[in-house]
Amino acid sequence: MAVTYREIKADILGRITRGDWKPGSLIPGELELAETYGAARATVNRAMRELAEDGIIERKRKSGSRVRLSPLRQARFDIPIVRREIEEQGAAYRYALVQSELVAAPDWVRARMGLAPGGKVRHLVCLHFADGAPYQHEDRWINLSVLPQARDADFATAGPNEWLVAQIPFSEAEISIAATAADAALSEHLACALGDPLLQIERSTRWKGQAVTFVRLVHHRGHRMTARY
Amino acid sequence: MAVTYREIKADILGRITRGDWKPGSLIPGELELAETYGAARATVNRAMRELAEDGIIERKRKSGSRVRLSPLRQARFDIPIVRREIEEQGAAYRYALVQSELVAAPDWVRARMGLAPGGKVRHLVCLHFADGAPYQHEDRWINLSVLPQARDADFATAGPNEWLVAQIPFSEAEISIAATAADAALSEHLACALGDPLLQIERSTRWKGQAVTFVRLVHHRGHRMTARY
Repeated sequence: MAVTYREIKADILGRITRGDWKPGSLIPGELELAETYGAARATVNRAMRELAEDGIIERKRKSGSRVRLSPLRQARFDIPIVRREIEEQGAAYRYALVQSELVAAPDWVRARMGLAPGGKVRHLVCLHFADGAPYQHEDRWINLSVLPQARDADFATAGPNEWLVAQIPFSEAEISIAATAADAALSEHLACALGDPLLQIERSTRWKGQAVTFVRLVHHRGHRMTARY
Repeated sequence: MAVTYREIKADILGRITRGDWKPGSLIPGELELAETYGAARATVNRAMRELAEDGIIERKRKSGSRVRLSPLRQARFDIPIVRREIEEQGAAYRYALVQSELVAAPDWVRARMGLAPGGKVRHLVCLHFADGAPYQHEDRWINLSVLPQARDADFATAGPNEWLVAQIPFSEAEISIAATAADAALSEHLACALGDPLLQIERSTRWKGQAVTFVRLVHHRGHRMTARY
């Protein structure tokens, strides 16, 4: 059996972890590694590419590859549709529409989304429950000039997130995570005390350069986002 | 010039974005695409692999590749060393050591890190400032049975993060993000009001299966983590 790129990757990682190859030191070239492992150069190349993507090594065209002095720490957080997130925890999901209106976007939303003055939006406030307990408060704004069909879409029984994904299968998003204090509406909806610290995720989604939707998701007290690297 | 995998990737993405290839629909096989683009199969394969990694398509060994019904949303957050994070914002960085002790790990730290009863740790409390304003409060625990050299390391002038990276160039980490309320110590150190909502990142780092360090990083009021996808 030929050696796989996974085996080469694991072996190189082992050398780095054991300290055989120190931070900052030069790694043998791909041709040399291909000989060492008795593998095709393309196989070694794939292992090196993944090590670089994982932030373990640094590749330079001319001077060769080095073990990174400080590993790049990139944490990947899955941001699933909330129904799926709740169901994957084994809890029963329930959705409620709290508010729905067609309005000219208020100034702060216009600024966030980069809309023209007077730009119309569909504004929705929704709640997502896990086993009957409030899990996430969704404050959603949809740009009607990009998605006019949002004017008449019915969000009484299912949230806008899944509807949006079906309308625009692929889009760019900017995400921002912060801590916020529960105001009167959030404390009522999320069943927590006024001023409680809550985890807030804001997401601006663009498609072909235009703002599609802006959403502010505020989670129940104690919510955590987790990742590994 | 032969077509590159990037061009193929961009073209396929365009077909999906324009709706030529709908969510859930089957994508032509790699051999067919290689013919269409006049490219090597390996080139098409790389484009498809990246599209799958980006969460745009789903690849199945037997039934071929499909456009994902709902794109996987994976946000990647860079978690740099705080000094670098502050300096990249163009601010002046300053470090202060608040507290340093050698102790038997308290129960909650033992539980978090999976240490044996009586396990010794170096406990450090540090502050990181940006242009003189408190930026991050670091509560750090280092396992002395894995890193005995942490007993005598000097953290008076530089924080433990960079020191740890030099000791253990590569490690596994579990990260958890939450909102917390400022207690008396945090409100003093971070110059905010008691009870203010603050963004907290906890990170447990393991190396060869053993806990190396646990850290709780609490940020100044108003701090945001951002990412794009």
